[in-house]
Amino acid sequence: MRVALLGGTGDIGEGLALRMGRDTDHTVVIGSREAERGRQAANEYNDTLASHGAEGAIEGGANPEAAARADVVVLAVPAYHLADTVDAVADSLGEAVLVSPAVGMQRDESGLHYNPPGAGSVTALATQVAPDGVPVVGAFHNLAAGRLAELEAELGWDVPIVGDDDDAKKTVMRLADGVTGLRALDAGGLDNATEIESLTPLLINLAANNGGLHDLGVSFH
Amino acid sequence: MRVALLGGTGDIGEGLALRMGRDTDHTVVIGSREAERGRQAANEYNDTLASHGAEGAIEGGANPEAAARADVVVLAVPAYHLADTVDAVADSLGEAVLVSPAVGMQRDESGLHYNPPGAGSVTALATQVAPDGVPVVGAFHNLAAGRLAELEAELGWDVPIVGDDDDAKKTVMRLADGVTGLRALDAGGLDNATEIESLTPLLINLAANNGGLHDLGVSFH
Repeated sequence: MRVALLGGTGDIGEGLALRMGRDTDHTVVIGSREAERGRQAANEYNDTLASHGAEGAIEGGANPEAAARADVVVLAVPAYHLADTVDAVADSLGEAVLVSPAVGMQRDESGLHYNPPGAGSVTALATQVAPDGVPVVGAFHNLAAGRLAELEAELGWDVPIVGDDDDAKKTVMRLADGVTGLRALDAGGLDNATEIESLTPLLINLAANNGGLHDLGVSFH
Repeated sequence: MRVALLGGTGDIGEGLALRMGRDTDHTVVIGSREAERGRQAANEYNDTLASHGAEGAIEGGANPEAAARADVVVLAVPAYHLADTVDAVADSLGEAVLVSPAVGMQRDESGLHYNPPGAGSVTALATQVAPDGVPVVGAFHNLAAGRLAELEAELGWDVPIVGDDDDAKKTVMRLADGVTGLRALDAGGLDNATEIESLTPLLINLAANNGGLHDLGVSFH
């Protein structure tokens, strides 16, 4: 399938691009607000893949170009850029599934805390700004971008995935399962996104408070 | 140390009692609103331990008896019984550390959702109702009681622990680490309890939506 990573020049986009580029046969396209930055990132990721002995065929361009003809469009942007990013590609989404991995967080003296938008979760916000008929799936919220981008690092992480459109959810579960070391888990409907997103600040707090732990993901067993 | 499990006749109390009874040298005391029920549960747990070749020395009684002279008092009661339970033992707490493992949840069509009390978390509520000077630690929120009580089952779970009193938190971390298959992790201050508690409905939703998964716990790596 064709997977667009909008904002794919950022750290979570880089990690997903490198892993999907190495472990799957999907066509990965890096989108950016500036076409040239998207192409440049794609070139860098292909160089990284080549240095790990993998064939790099990642493409890049402006966000609307990346979204056009994509089967899955991942909103790999900070929560506060979500609405703008969806608006910019709204006419290019076609039959794509929109994937929301972003989490809203804020810091206080204790550490990081979940700070959802008024919609209840960033995933729910994505459903509000998505064009009619475009299914939204929540996924990839709990991946540590740094570890993801270290291709030699083993993951062993679970990816809880939520969606109200079963076909769309299954497509994204297959995408996640295709990455070595990730296991997709069905976490039910979109209303369950809140508990998934709020796990991310916990992962960061645990890494901050326990020597030897960093770039944490999660597994359920 | 002496560990009181108030409401220890319930499922999470049973699991903690059996595991601590088998894996540690602590004196475990089951508290109940009725002394006779506490003693009866202790006898049953001792029989279970004996049938697994472990020496059972679990004691039982009314909640205030159980709390008296305890080093750690675990509030193994549903969230809505928390305040009553603390009130009942307030004069017996002495130098004890109070541990809050409860989580508030409610169900809708999608599954279970985190439903914190006005205090922000059940752990925070425990600090509000605890007598002055009694330190509160949040722990054991994410343990599947059923698996805990199956003594032959391996766990491999992490226990995120929060507290503002470092000595109290360390005491509870040692207690958790003493159970085979549990690893205590420092999750920072009490304000971080919300993200830990909200993980529990996610565990239940994942078990409900994925064939073959049940009684889930979590590990961070």
